[in-house]
Amino acid sequence: MTDVNGISIGILGGTGDQGKGLARRFALAGHPVLIGSRSAERAQEAADSIGAGVSGQAVSGLSVSGAANADVAARADVVIVAVPYDGHRELLVSLRAELAGKIVIDCVNPLGFDKQGAHALQVEEGSAAQQAAAVLPDSRVVAAFHHVSAMLLLDESVAKVDLDVLVLGDDREATDLVQALAAVIPGVRGVYGGRLRNAHQVEAFTANLISINRRYKAHAGLRITDV
Amino acid sequence: MTDVNGISIGILGGTGDQGKGLARRFALAGHPVLIGSRSAERAQEAADSIGAGVSGQAVSGLSVSGAANADVAARADVVIVAVPYDGHRELLVSLRAELAGKIVIDCVNPLGFDKQGAHALQVEEGSAAQQAAAVLPDSRVVAAFHHVSAMLLLDESVAKVDLDVLVLGDDREATDLVQALAAVIPGVRGVYGGRLRNAHQVEAFTANLISINRRYKAHAGLRITDV
Repeated sequence: MTDVNGISIGILGGTGDQGKGLARRFALAGHPVLIGSRSAERAQEAADSIGAGVSGQAVSGLSVSGAANADVAARADVVIVAVPYDGHRELLVSLRAELAGKIVIDCVNPLGFDKQGAHALQVEEGSAAQQAAAVLPDSRVVAAFHHVSAMLLLDESVAKVDLDVLVLGDDREATDLVQALAAVIPGVRGVYGGRLRNAHQVEAFTANLISINRRYKAHAGLRITDV
Repeated sequence: MTDVNGISIGILGGTGDQGKGLARRFALAGHPVLIGSRSAERAQEAADSIGAGVSGQAVSGLSVSGAANADVAARADVVIVAVPYDGHRELLVSLRAELAGKIVIDCVNPLGFDKQGAHALQVEEGSAAQQAAAVLPDSRVVAAFHHVSAMLLLDESVAKVDLDVLVLGDDREATDLVQALAAVIPGVRGVYGGRLRNAHQVEAFTANLISINRRYKAHAGLRITDV
């Protein structure tokens, strides 16, 4: 498996639950984590809250800092995009230079919500990940981490997360690295899930997981059998 | 769980691998199975081959017969649609009367194939299952059995199939019954997977499973965690 030891991870939109949950797990695994936000102050607050521990018990030895999205995009080795779909394209267009040459991991789920629950939104490029690839031609875009439950990632009583992270992309070296990154979270496997053109259904499946969670009062995830 | 004891199951397109695999497993579970095909003769041949056992060792006590698709649609209690996507709409339109009032289980995956592998096709109605619901307004359409591996279903050495069958639909009584039907196959659970409008990504995910199978030399399936 690709060696990811010491790689620094930036998280754009890292003040949201999903981003903060991933930040916490990567920091616990020993990675330097940079939380990005439109506001550097709010990013630093989120970073401080992770260092302080979710239940108020400080966690020693974590390297988590906060900064504006552009700083994070420029400084981190690998960048995770965890912003709401609304604003996704605009943010990435603005960071094209900072993200050039980097592995960019898109975990955005374009979903709508109404009285009948969640449903997938149409994306002109096919998927959020393909949109990222279209606006970041000089980056190595990988789709992953769509189905992680922010609640489980942030829950101090959950030592292991029972989940396979599907990793999609057209660049084998990049998907291998992201699979290895997924595996630093205890319990998680990174499983190759196909090319970027098949990312839509992985993003959209989050709507089904929301329906499953509602029906079964669960925090459902996927496991791939026979792999 | 809904009692499905003795329910007869018709399988349109039951001479294909997926249909035949399902026919075999339902027959082994004690259900009367009717295999449908455009040709009644080929349907009967497929039925005979299941009764004869995959490896040539006859299986006693199975109730499997073959007939033309329209006969099967008229006679079976519950009907599974396992035809290729090409021809799906046309067949269902022609069987509207026979399928009226019945639970119709659509397991069709609209996929295209090229040098880069499988990919999801656009379906005007959103998904094959929604297409079935649109052309069968008097039937109770449920989407399920998309990810079952025909090879595993037909393999006599596979006693248990390690898989959750996602069951989608807007009619709770119908999805409950189909969940119970899925569970008669040893190892399989039927898990509610959302409303019919979220069927597209479940159908399309079969393309990802094909990519996974190729990468890992596996017969991959899904399990839903925490359910």
